[in-house]
Amino acid sequence: MRAVQLVDYDGKPGSLIVAEVPVPRPGPGEVLVKVFASPVNPSDLMFTTGNYGFKKPLPATPGFEGSGTVVETGSGMMAGFMRGRRVACAAADAKSTGGMWAEYIVTSARFCVPLSKKVEMEQAATMLVNPLTAWALVDEARRGRHSAAVQTAAASALGRMVVRLGQKFGLPVINVVRRPEQVELLRGMGTEHVLNSSEAGFDDALRKKCHKLGATISFEAVAGQMSGRVLRAQPQGSRMLVYGGLSLKDVEVETGSLIFEGKRVEGFWLSAWLRGRNILSQLRIARQVQALLAGELKTEIRARLPLEKAAEGLAQYAADMTAGKVLLMPSGSPDSSMNSS
Amino acid sequence: MRAVQLVDYDGKPGSLIVAEVPVPRPGPGEVLVKVFASPVNPSDLMFTTGNYGFKKPLPATPGFEGSGTVVETGSGMMAGFMRGRRVACAAADAKSTGGMWAEYIVTSARFCVPLSKKVEMEQAATMLVNPLTAWALVDEARRGRHSAAVQTAAASALGRMVVRLGQKFGLPVINVVRRPEQVELLRGMGTEHVLNSSEAGFDDALRKKCHKLGATISFEAVAGQMSGRVLRAQPQGSRMLVYGGLSLKDVEVETGSLIFEGKRVEGFWLSAWLRGRNILSQLRIARQVQALLAGELKTEIRARLPLEKAAEGLAQYAADMTAGKVLLMPSGSPDSSMNSS
Repeated sequence: MRAVQLVDYDGKPGSLIVAEVPVPRPGPGEVLVKVFASPVNPSDLMFTTGNYGFKKPLPATPGFEGSGTVVETGSGMMAGFMRGRRVACAAADAKSTGGMWAEYIVTSARFCVPLSKKVEMEQAATMLVNPLTAWALVDEARRGRHSAAVQTAAASALGRMVVRLGQKFGLPVINVVRRPEQVELLRGMGTEHVLNSSEAGFDDALRKKCHKLGATISFEAVAGQMSGRVLRAQPQGSRMLVYGGLSLKDVEVETGSLIFEGKRVEGFWLSAWLRGRNILSQLRIARQVQALLAGELKTEIRARLPLEKAAEGLAQYAADMTAGKVLLMPSGSPDSSMNSS
Repeated sequence: MRAVQLVDYDGKPGSLIVAEVPVPRPGPGEVLVKVFASPVNPSDLMFTTGNYGFKKPLPATPGFEGSGTVVETGSGMMAGFMRGRRVACAAADAKSTGGMWAEYIVTSARFCVPLSKKVEMEQAATMLVNPLTAWALVDEARRGRHSAAVQTAAASALGRMVVRLGQKFGLPVINVVRRPEQVELLRGMGTEHVLNSSEAGFDDALRKKCHKLGATISFEAVAGQMSGRVLRAQPQGSRMLVYGGLSLKDVEVETGSLIFEGKRVEGFWLSAWLRGRNILSQLRIARQVQALLAGELKTEIRARLPLEKAAEGLAQYAADMTAGKVLLMPSGSPDSSMNSS
């Protein structure tokens, strides 16, 4: 089969090649999935440049999530249950060098979610990272009884899902973006609270909104000084969940915000969050997320590329994360590769 | 009466003067305390330079804690109970411009702790900030069932109290200092785990010790990059309590430490911590701290200065926080002003 391989963590285009490798075989509890589509995510940008939570021995195939059909199963009840099904799935953990940017992947049956008939394979390809993360963040805000939330990188695919979930569940969300066209984009979605961090007066305006609405929880994906600006604007006793570091900088927050205002900063990692839940709770969440996949949690697709264009897809996505997802289609796409949906 | 007055937050020596002002009168629930001694603390350095949790309208008298005798009381049972007693006390809150660096202070009876006979007035003067903070930090470690703790600025007065409390309660403490003589000082106290952050190999050594001992809680008083170095060294899921910012920099931590290792960073402020406890619990803690005041929680005094030398005392203390506390003695000291204890 054909598989993208990362051969170096230096982040250069030559670090991604396509190789001909044997189709892997599923072991006990595992399934072989024929991959339909797999997106380029921020986590792929981090992984391919060595900035992710773990490094795999190289060569390794990138791609943490995707959709496909289970064509072969190992022993075990759960694996057997998946046979022949359409699934959304995640690549196995740090120990495996397999990934979704390949024609086939072997992964644990536990990392597969069987798809309901209504869910399209393309939407399912991006279901496990963005929609689930957005769902989890909004869930944290609701369960913690926060009156409102504030989020950075609000125009990203994930940010827009948080916006729509907030609208659905009646959670006011204050949206921080950094370009005027992103303000327009979010206004077009019917959001009331959008602020451009590049404008003068941003910090004051953010502080006023956060205090007025009681935005005692924040979802932060930028890091660097943006973390400190948001934390400073939040009311006393607030909580910040850092789920990304798009600036590639450290999180920097005022010492006084922490000490004198009782604020705290935590990381948020979907896989750790899911591990903290039992299997029934995970299944319930997967059902709820699937039900919203054509609506609040819909992903916009801007390009469908063959495996050979993985490096190009990464670069294209890195250049503008607002314009929709880039999908890699290992078996080709019915329409021409660069059409937008 | 004579009182030190801060007339500017610019941090220059001329910003502190001594003025002749009327003796204040206690209102309902308040007491008038004739001040015996009041120390120079890091919080005074922060307050006089405008870096504390609040700014008071100027002129204001600095000095957050001290000891003295209650010579007059307002109405109310608690105030009446304090009449004639020797007390450790804290200055009233942000709304009052009174402070302990004066011959007399009016404060709330709730901010007074009656002293047991065994406690010396000089030790009582420094009882409410350092000993209580050390006690609270170690209490957090014990109640959170952390196997070990790691602390920065370990040679400070507060750091040494944490060391001794750790020894008393069987909590291993990893001590981070930045000078060789501080390593010697702590070794002389019988501590097993001391690391000099200025030495090559510090980060590796710290990481190994933190993982081996399970130092899943840290007490951080430096901020800047030190926060990130310690947090990175701690095991997965660790908690950092920031209680000071001696570097006057922001807290900087790796984004990945937060996201992928489930670590979190919180501020610790004694007054907020105490407010979170009921009056009985506060009294119990005050008793326990007093009982340790001649031993584990003893403060070394290096100088006793009259109010007129407040600016000098601040500078002297800022230059070397390891060498013991500087006390201001509003009514003069029995011995000459610069003797060490």
